[in-house]
Amino acid sequence: MNYFEMDKNREFDLILLGRVAIDFNPAYNDQVKEDFKPLKDVHMFEKYVGGSPANIAVGISRHGMKAGFIGKVSDDQFGDYVTEYFDKEGIDTSQITRCVNGEKLGLTFTEMLSSSESHILMYRNCIADLQLSVDDIQEDYIKNSKAILISGTALAESPSREAAIKAVMLAKKNNTRIIFDIDYREYNWKNPDEISIYYSIIAKEADIIMGSREEFDLTEKLIKPGMKDEESAAYWHGHNATIVVIKHGMKGSTAYTCDGQQFSIKPFPVDARKGFGGGDGYGSGFIYGLYQGWELIDCLEFGSAEAAMMVKSNSSSDTLPGPEEVHAFIKEEKELYGEMIARV
Amino acid sequence: MNYFEMDKNREFDLILLGRVAIDFNPAYNDQVKEDFKPLKDVHMFEKYVGGSPANIAVGISRHGMKAGFIGKVSDDQFGDYVTEYFDKEGIDTSQITRCVNGEKLGLTFTEMLSSSESHILMYRNCIADLQLSVDDIQEDYIKNSKAILISGTALAESPSREAAIKAVMLAKKNNTRIIFDIDYREYNWKNPDEISIYYSIIAKEADIIMGSREEFDLTEKLIKPGMKDEESAAYWHGHNATIVVIKHGMKGSTAYTCDGQQFSIKPFPVDARKGFGGGDGYGSGFIYGLYQGWELIDCLEFGSAEAAMMVKSNSSSDTLPGPEEVHAFIKEEKELYGEMIARV
Amino acid sequence: MNYFEMDKNREFDLILLGRVAIDFNPAYNDQVKEDFKPLKDVHMFEKYVGGSPANIAVGISRHGMKAGFIGKVSDDQFGDYVTEYFDKEGIDTSQITRCVNGEKLGLTFTEMLSSSESHILMYRNCIADLQLSVDDIQEDYIKNSKAILISGTALAESPSREAAIKAVMLAKKNNTRIIFDIDYREYNWKNPDEISIYYSIIAKEADIIMGSREEFDLTEKLIKPGMKDEESAAYWHGHNATIVVIKHGMKGSTAYTCDGQQFSIKPFPVDARKGFGGGDGYGSGFIYGLYQGWELIDCLEFGSAEAAMMVKSNSSSDTLPGPEEVHAFIKEEKELYGEMIARV
Amino acid sequence: MNYFEMDKNREFDLILLGRVAIDFNPAYNDQVKEDFKPLKDVHMFEKYVGGSPANIAVGISRHGMKAGFIGKVSDDQFGDYVTEYFDKEGIDTSQITRCVNGEKLGLTFTEMLSSSESHILMYRNCIADLQLSVDDIQEDYIKNSKAILISGTALAESPSREAAIKAVMLAKKNNTRIIFDIDYREYNWKNPDEISIYYSIIAKEADIIMGSREEFDLTEKLIKPGMKDEESAAYWHGHNATIVVIKHGMKGSTAYTCDGQQFSIKPFPVDARKGFGGGDGYGSGFIYGLYQGWELIDCLEFGSAEAAMMVKSNSSSDTLPGPEEVHAFIKEEKELYGEMIARV
Repeated sequence: MNYFEMDKNREFDLILLGRVAIDFNPAYNDQVKEDFKPLKDVHMFEKYVGGSPANIAVGISRHGMKAGFIGKVSDDQFGDYVTEYFDKEGIDTSQITRCVNGEKLGLTFTEMLSSSESHILMYRNCIADLQLSVDDIQEDYIKNSKAILISGTALAESPSREAAIKAVMLAKKNNTRIIFDIDYREYNWKNPDEISIYYSIIAKEADIIMGSREEFDLTEKLIKPGMKDEESAAYWHGHNATIVVIKHGMKGSTAYTCDGQQFSIKPFPVDARKGFGGGDGYGSGFIYGLYQGWELIDCLEFGSAEAAMMVKSNSSSDTLPGPEEVHAFIKEEKELYGEMIARV
Repeated sequence: MNYFEMDKNREFDLILLGRVAIDFNPAYNDQVKEDFKPLKDVHMFEKYVGGSPANIAVGISRHGMKAGFIGKVSDDQFGDYVTEYFDKEGIDTSQITRCVNGEKLGLTFTEMLSSSESHILMYRNCIADLQLSVDDIQEDYIKNSKAILISGTALAESPSREAAIKAVMLAKKNNTRIIFDIDYREYNWKNPDEISIYYSIIAKEADIIMGSREEFDLTEKLIKPGMKDEESAAYWHGHNATIVVIKHGMKGSTAYTCDGQQFSIKPFPVDARKGFGGGDGYGSGFIYGLYQGWELIDCLEFGSAEAAMMVKSNSSSDTLPGPEEVHAFIKEEKELYGEMIARV
Repeated sequence: MNYFEMDKNREFDLILLGRVAIDFNPAYNDQVKEDFKPLKDVHMFEKYVGGSPANIAVGISRHGMKAGFIGKVSDDQFGDYVTEYFDKEGIDTSQITRCVNGEKLGLTFTEMLSSSESHILMYRNCIADLQLSVDDIQEDYIKNSKAILISGTALAESPSREAAIKAVMLAKKNNTRIIFDIDYREYNWKNPDEISIYYSIIAKEADIIMGSREEFDLTEKLIKPGMKDEESAAYWHGHNATIVVIKHGMKGSTAYTCDGQQFSIKPFPVDARKGFGGGDGYGSGFIYGLYQGWELIDCLEFGSAEAAMMVKSNSSSDTLPGPEEVHAFIKEEKELYGEMIARV
Repeated sequence: MNYFEMDKNREFDLILLGRVAIDFNPAYNDQVKEDFKPLKDVHMFEKYVGGSPANIAVGISRHGMKAGFIGKVSDDQFGDYVTEYFDKEGIDTSQITRCVNGEKLGLTFTEMLSSSESHILMYRNCIADLQLSVDDIQEDYIKNSKAILISGTALAESPSREAAIKAVMLAKKNNTRIIFDIDYREYNWKNPDEISIYYSIIAKEADIIMGSREEFDLTEKLIKPGMKDEESAAYWHGHNATIVVIKHGMKGSTAYTCDGQQFSIKPFPVDARKGFGGGDGYGSGFIYGLYQGWELIDCLEFGSAEAAMMVKSNSSSDTLPGPEEVHAFIKEEKELYGEMIARV
């Protein structure tokens, strides 16, 4: 069964809506290696493009897909930086606009305390990405893409919140598939009810929903708290979802399909540099597989492999691999650990 | 067919969510009569409780129904005034809370230029009713009512916007019927897309939707602009609505039911004092009829009669009639003009 | 000694900067008489132009002085109302501009509990008068007036605060006399330190300072709290003030001059309708006297008489008298109670 | 003549009020050297404590003076970083408080295009330092210091603006000397009139005013635009200033004293790494000299030397020298270029 039927005659494979930001990670390269330590004691940082939907845009673009981005960036050199980076990666930036009231690009400073413990310090007050407004959403652009991915962070505040909902309404109107990546970031949200309200507005319309168990709990707070994974999946299948992916961190993740099947995957074993960045690799790989028409379990495996490759790296964007590298990584891992290493 | 099945074992017939405000109308009573004139030239004003859902609360309460109100009022004597008025009318005020940051009650100054031309000057900046927040919404209260009426004005701004959506989600969860009175007021809305977004969120969940053609157009802007009444009705029947009432001012209004029927009514002929206030009488009467289990055409006639009675009055709340008075009015009109005076 | 030397060759006698608002007073006229009662129970109101500097503008204009007003009003019929009222009174309105972001004119609803006890309920959130900005202040206008009166309420918030300070700086630069009417209104101020900061900035530059003991205490909080009247006067004489008027309500008031003299006055005995509105009459009368070159004690007596006339009235603007009426009132009172009735 | 008489019996030599922030400079050290290039192309950054008054606090502390700091920092690891840095430098941090509404520490990303051309990209929206409020200003602390330095940036927004003015009023009340370092940063200011208003409020009270010609022009806009240096100096001497220092960049600077003297200094010739950071070295050195009771020309020379040392460095704080190093630098420069190298 094809869980994700698309209109093939469209220019863009996927357009992504949400934040593009800058990650400042403790320097860790050939010249400088900042040890694991509290953020306040780090002296040197490396600058990378960041932000979940931005990373996925880079990821799928490196897999040969045609991506576009709907976003708002600062009217300064940091805005130039991320836009030029997207251009270089072949991501369409025609729908990235500049802030006019001095809002700045989001910044994420990463603290790496160990390979598994890391925290972030975010600059997200009066921030560029959340200034995206309904006037920035063009129906023709959405009509011209097979699917749109909405990052849940875009829902945290007005006017970006309404821009995201408008994009989903126009996607619906124009038969553009909707992928909802819940992507919860505590910052900017005012209270848990608000989270449930806005997540569920998008989730009800989405064809694919991806999130952790915690993220589904946040979404379902005002609908029916305490649902198990199967119940959650069934609930959203009852609306528009054909695939519901629920993640449980190191315990693996499961994709539930609207025909009652489920497919599970575990992480590949790797030495991690950091405890984050895997999710966007997972998303890029999984979506790539779907577009190839692969079996769902193969999509998941590909995503899981790409996730493993990313947690080894000091960046969440710049080291995203091409498909050959992911295939090679899977091959290598299977040779080392057996064919079923990531499968359940 | 029963278009509006309710759980009879609930304390409240209807709870209403939205604004309660104060109307200042040019004085027109036994002592003083301000002629039709520009607002700036009016010297004496009469003070009345106002705001669409507040008026409907008064209206149905005078018809013997048990009403409750979810709202936010100023922490001053104007807040006392409206709350005490509700108490006196038998409306439950346990869910009316006070503003804590000095926000004031909405004010509406009315300009009456002729019996058909009137304008309003609204005070709605930093206003009390729009401070209603998700924390003010109690699930038990909603669970305890047969139905909830949402006034669309409550959607114009945060945090009231989210409070209203939460109330609807909890109504859904608890099998409480939802009436959506679109009640468009230009004030506070930022752009037309926003209107379509939030109106449609509620409209999709509502059992009954009531609004003018213009209000349905606003709602449907991002869904499918330009729908005719029948198409609109069919669209919302495709979601959760069983009754869709579309009004065309002096040309009358039509109720469309989910089983494909439609029922139309015209205004009763009266000498109007003012061109507004009829809608809330209409709502009160129509809802009253529904709760009595009347045929839909009788509900409409009753609503239309109550509307006619209200445009003759200088207030939109204080002169709302009891059911006997409405019946008497209908009887009288029919004797004067014939049985079918308001029917099509 | 002339305590208030002015450049006689200027078009305007006095320009006033600050709020113009609308008073809604319980109706009390030939047709309707609302008894003393809580505000919430009042049904009919009369609308008047209000706001301290607006009242003084009307007052001095009726005394034949050429007044101008620097202010910001709403872009609606209430804005029209006050502007047209000023025009009619002969007050120059060329420097009254309209709000562009929907801010509304301030409203004051008066509660009259007895002839001596009254309260006000103010609408002053997002309010028109406090939107006055530095761009509204024209040097030529200030240069063209003998003096400028600053109402302290204009200092409560930005951008009006900076507009007022700019006006004072330009007055200083152009040798325009400065009258500071402290006019404390609790509303809009954030904390007592802020009050002391901004009041003292203006007080330091003012030629005449008028206020109650409480208002001087607020001004001096961060300078030297607890000063007696004589100390306060001496402190401000040490800056730029030639006359310092300190009021003690029903106990009377005293003017301290920079040459060490002091002149005291008491209220005239009257049956008051309300406990406010006297201050602006006092200001109008006192300033009028100064411009006539009268002895200070005569200025005070004239102001005190005008104050007495105003507390008898239901309005604070519309019933402001001309000079003949004040003279007549003084004559009448003296005949009744003796020549020294108001003098100490 | 002693231009800066202080009460010697006080615990602190100088307390500084204003911003402490973080500088992210392109990495330039033994391990990594980012060449001169546009900011967007810089990959590695070094993190330093920054902000003009923070740098001066570090500078004078390294010269053995007892410094305290009045400021507001973020409640996160960046707030920890700057506070711990101050602690380590011996600067009293008892008056540094934390933000409670999630405001973040200011960030300054530096672009170095050549040794003379550099730009900055500032994060100063919803920023920690400007949240300093009147409640953070303790009279006892100010009473306990010989002098207070106000950085003009603290005046750019409320509530910091009022906190700074309160500190100056309390300094006046308690005979604490006032140094006004104009320190103009375009960010956060709304219009030129506002700058003139608030700069002049402080300048009128200050014993020492330090700024560039451009900064004095900004200050004097509403007072008397277009003044020459001598006129400016005379104007401020007419208020409370005993020393007025006016800087002309590479052309040198001049100190004007209230007894009509003037003393000029030129920059020492050095190979600069960057075109900024010199000013705070200048301030530290000049103030140190004053506290030693040196002749004014010697204070200026010491400041100019410290400025020269700082523009050679990649940081504006971490490399601030002790007095021996400055003396050594002066000696060395004079040996190379002659005794009068910096003197006019």
